[in-house]
Amino acid sequence: MDAIGIDIGGTKIAGAVVTELGEIIAEDRVATDARDSEAIVDAVVAMIEKLSDGRDIHSAGVAAPGFIDAAQSIVYYTPNIPWREEPLRDILAKRLDLDITIDNDANAAGWAEFRFGAGRLVSDMTMLTIGTGVGGAIVTRDKLFRGGFGAGAELGHMRIVPDGLPCGCGARGCIEQYGSGRALLRMANAIADVGGIGQALARVRDQKGSLSGGDLSTLIVDGDPGACQALRELGHWLGQACASLSAVLDPQLFVFGGGVAVAGELLLEPIRESYLANLPARGYHPEPEFVIAELVNDAGVVGAADLARLHLQST
Amino acid sequence: MDAIGIDIGGTKIAGAVVTELGEIIAEDRVATDARDSEAIVDAVVAMIEKLSDGRDIHSAGVAAPGFIDAAQSIVYYTPNIPWREEPLRDILAKRLDLDITIDNDANAAGWAEFRFGAGRLVSDMTMLTIGTGVGGAIVTRDKLFRGGFGAGAELGHMRIVPDGLPCGCGARGCIEQYGSGRALLRMANAIADVGGIGQALARVRDQKGSLSGGDLSTLIVDGDPGACQALRELGHWLGQACASLSAVLDPQLFVFGGGVAVAGELLLEPIRESYLANLPARGYHPEPEFVIAELVNDAGVVGAADLARLHLQST
Amino acid sequence: MDAIGIDIGGTKIAGAVVTELGEIIAEDRVATDARDSEAIVDAVVAMIEKLSDGRDIHSAGVAAPGFIDAAQSIVYYTPNIPWREEPLRDILAKRLDLDITIDNDANAAGWAEFRFGAGRLVSDMTMLTIGTGVGGAIVTRDKLFRGGFGAGAELGHMRIVPDGLPCGCGARGCIEQYGSGRALLRMANAIADVGGIGQALARVRDQKGSLSGGDLSTLIVDGDPGACQALRELGHWLGQACASLSAVLDPQLFVFGGGVAVAGELLLEPIRESYLANLPARGYHPEPEFVIAELVNDAGVVGAADLARLHLQST
Amino acid sequence: MDAIGIDIGGTKIAGAVVTELGEIIAEDRVATDARDSEAIVDAVVAMIEKLSDGRDIHSAGVAAPGFIDAAQSIVYYTPNIPWREEPLRDILAKRLDLDITIDNDANAAGWAEFRFGAGRLVSDMTMLTIGTGVGGAIVTRDKLFRGGFGAGAELGHMRIVPDGLPCGCGARGCIEQYGSGRALLRMANAIADVGGIGQALARVRDQKGSLSGGDLSTLIVDGDPGACQALRELGHWLGQACASLSAVLDPQLFVFGGGVAVAGELLLEPIRESYLANLPARGYHPEPEFVIAELVNDAGVVGAADLARLHLQST
Repeated sequence: MDAIGIDIGGTKIAGAVVTELGEIIAEDRVATDARDSEAIVDAVVAMIEKLSDGRDIHSAGVAAPGFIDAAQSIVYYTPNIPWREEPLRDILAKRLDLDITIDNDANAAGWAEFRFGAGRLVSDMTMLTIGTGVGGAIVTRDKLFRGGFGAGAELGHMRIVPDGLPCGCGARGCIEQYGSGRALLRMANAIADVGGIGQALARVRDQKGSLSGGDLSTLIVDGDPGACQALRELGHWLGQACASLSAVLDPQLFVFGGGVAVAGELLLEPIRESYLANLPARGYHPEPEFVIAELVNDAGVVGAADLARLHLQST
Repeated sequence: MDAIGIDIGGTKIAGAVVTELGEIIAEDRVATDARDSEAIVDAVVAMIEKLSDGRDIHSAGVAAPGFIDAAQSIVYYTPNIPWREEPLRDILAKRLDLDITIDNDANAAGWAEFRFGAGRLVSDMTMLTIGTGVGGAIVTRDKLFRGGFGAGAELGHMRIVPDGLPCGCGARGCIEQYGSGRALLRMANAIADVGGIGQALARVRDQKGSLSGGDLSTLIVDGDPGACQALRELGHWLGQACASLSAVLDPQLFVFGGGVAVAGELLLEPIRESYLANLPARGYHPEPEFVIAELVNDAGVVGAADLARLHLQST
Repeated sequence: MDAIGIDIGGTKIAGAVVTELGEIIAEDRVATDARDSEAIVDAVVAMIEKLSDGRDIHSAGVAAPGFIDAAQSIVYYTPNIPWREEPLRDILAKRLDLDITIDNDANAAGWAEFRFGAGRLVSDMTMLTIGTGVGGAIVTRDKLFRGGFGAGAELGHMRIVPDGLPCGCGARGCIEQYGSGRALLRMANAIADVGGIGQALARVRDQKGSLSGGDLSTLIVDGDPGACQALRELGHWLGQACASLSAVLDPQLFVFGGGVAVAGELLLEPIRESYLANLPARGYHPEPEFVIAELVNDAGVVGAADLARLHLQST
Repeated sequence: MDAIGIDIGGTKIAGAVVTELGEIIAEDRVATDARDSEAIVDAVVAMIEKLSDGRDIHSAGVAAPGFIDAAQSIVYYTPNIPWREEPLRDILAKRLDLDITIDNDANAAGWAEFRFGAGRLVSDMTMLTIGTGVGGAIVTRDKLFRGGFGAGAELGHMRIVPDGLPCGCGARGCIEQYGSGRALLRMANAIADVGGIGQALARVRDQKGSLSGGDLSTLIVDGDPGACQALRELGHWLGQACASLSAVLDPQLFVFGGGVAVAGELLLEPIRESYLANLPARGYHPEPEFVIAELVNDAGVVGAADLARLHLQST
């Protein structure tokens, strides 16, 4: 049975009708003002009504950044939208005649990847979404791992450096400060400052006022040594983090999604190198695969819809 | 239905008949030579035969240190016994008319704690066993978390210090080097070296030639400032590790077992302090409880028996 | 016999006719676009033709930044000009009826200093050119040391800090990041950020938008405590590097050239202090002299000409 | 023409008659008391007289540890024997009717390797002798590099860690503390302390009281994971040092001699890995070869003899 998936981002809301096989058969998108909580709810309701109109649909899943409770019901906290212990599921359920579930956006994306993308052949998968920050998702024994309060799999906030760089979460030394798109820009700027292999980075920065993720992507694709060195540094930190994650989670597969993951093998190669150099009990520990995510843009809505469909089936 | 649990340690094999409620109704114990793999198998077979003799028992679980595959069947690697890809379940099953399962010893202990001890009221629990090394167990949604290859929950080998102290696993900076009984002795020796609060530690060390775990326990119970400082240092490292584990696993409860955990609140207090100081998104993240394990000596055999009983029921 | 020396810089080409005694008897200079490789070759040819016109000259030496092969013939790599394995000597020799040699610019400057400047009384000298980056030259037993592939004496890229600041060469922790003019500006900016002795630096920075090398020079000459502290920090790093260089190269003399070296004794004093504090086998190891270069602006052309003259004599 | 080579070690004096092709045609050896300077001189004189008796020999070279002046004449300092500014060449020359030269022992060994061993096909070679300490030798343009005072090529005392481990030379962070046989023992002991892969090391240490270099060799040959991990760590530090040495010396070949070098490829592999990861301008810099020395035990006497023969020819 088809289901609706909604993905609430910082600047837009995306929605889609998704089949049991993960195919999108209708979609929608509106801009959003993250500071206006009521307007967001209204927009989500309107989008679900529009997408379900004339279709036999009984469930809708909503993905949002932040902490969601383990019952897929309450938004404890989102970084951008002013929701604190918001009973979002009940608010939506009162206005819609559908089974509603709420999920963390990285979890939704990871679940889509597990069901219909790079993870469809394994039972245990760990996904890192390398966007502005670092999101995480864990699948174990074919189930999404949520943790005891629903706030698990926040892999971007595992600490990898004691007293390291301060993080937006209030702690220090989190992976997010060494393995995110924002960290990549910091590393690229540091290389631009030193001349030599940083000259092309410095030239683009001078022309444009500052480096963007798009600038970096272009330079990486062109094989610029400075931009590639920044990516390699990022990959080394991520590989070290994956070595620790193997000790804890022991996945058969690591999947890398998000904007930075389009670098493909250029990102995976330093990750694998650094993973092996830091793997506990190397040689005795089975070694996982490292791959790039397949469902780049639609993972959030597809995963949210599938989690909603499964929730309805299990009740 | 009753089941048998066996716990293979470095110097002895312990066994027991365990009821569905976790009660031990018979037990046995023999010394063992860890280097003689065949003698260990013979001893396990003899112990199971003796314990099951005259009883209506259909399953036996064997706990051992090292990596066990996810199907509870093969010992990939043990640090002491020379087993490498040993098909221990088949070897035992050929000689015994029982349903046999093999499990990692820290997993067995964690499972016992979850079923019959400190974790019996929660669904998601993380346990750290602080013995000579640091073992780990994860329970999520009432199930033991094994990981994709069966080698998950090796929490002692999450890295907390880049390029940190070398670890027995071949990597560096693992929790085991900062949060184990062996680490506590190293910290205590360092304090004994510097005079001041280390004077009592130095005196005992001079008298006995070297400090033992028992010496430290005695000094901690007596409130000796040097020994208590070493314990506090250990607790601070463990609390930092738990902050990272919350980001990944988000348990409702952290349980501390093993010999060092008999220090009780003296250990838990610095763990909680340091946990809160390092918790990502503190204030927005639900906070778990920190408690000491309840089944100190019998956890291994009780957990192994219960896992065996559940395996038989599910087949 | 007189010879011609040419020095190809990032923004200009300088040339001169140089006597056997190192005197310049004619000179020329043109602006250059570093990205246009052919235009540079044309300009070099034109300048050599112009300078040799009507003179009895048989050799010309060309100095350029980057890696030059040990046979003084091929430019393997330059950071600014797009030359990669460029057979520059053959290209020029086809168009000019002279014996042509190619040399690294820091080597040429060091050779001039050895022959006609601060190093003329010793047989073994090490020179560090402290400009935007850090260049190096080594003379041993009265001969220029080139290394097995011609890429030796890149003293700015000896590592002094493991996992240190990223360098334009792609590695980390190179002297160039701690002992160059660019490093001096970074240190001065850091001091400007903290108030106190950094107040004058901060005031100039606010007025001009950013600090320049010239601003620093003025403040150092005026005895500003912040600017002098930055110079002292630079000198301490350079002194540490010289201690390592003594272990390897054991020169009788260290010479410091480049723009930052105009600071004179203000630079040499912290270098000597830090050198002695870090010298292996201090007290048993003969101690070298530390001096400022004498041929500040002309060193490149004078050295290139002399190396060309010597090459012609030896063939 | 044949020449005599003498190698004064800490516990013995070795001597040989060596042909122009580096072949040993006679040899001798006596035990020595390093504290008795006069007895050593007497023993050297006696050995040279004995070896030259009845042979047409006109030169003898003496290799000793420590600083020797560039004129191959005076021992400035030796770590074991109480020689300080000892005019050893004149002392010996008065008692022997031969042309005498004095050379540093690592230089003599490096020269032998260059002339008759692993370096015979190149012009520029750097050798690291990995014994109890770390010795060095540099050959450039087919000549031994001595430095301005004769104390160059002390490669073991290039600093690789600022404020690093204290060194016997009085400085800190020297390669010798991270890349010598003594460092290897320290690393192996640290691994023995942590259990796991260190168990075999710990067992041998317990049996024998302490670990020796021979114990480590045996365990490395057996593939023991703890001993191999210590060797890998040593290799990684040496590779980092070689990356810096390439920037300064740019040899075509790195040769590794001394007792630790018998580990062969097990040592070279981590050196190469770490060298490439830290090489400045990787990709643009020609890459040297890394090999094991060929003349393991006789390098000192062979090199000393050849340097003496060449000295006589050049006078």
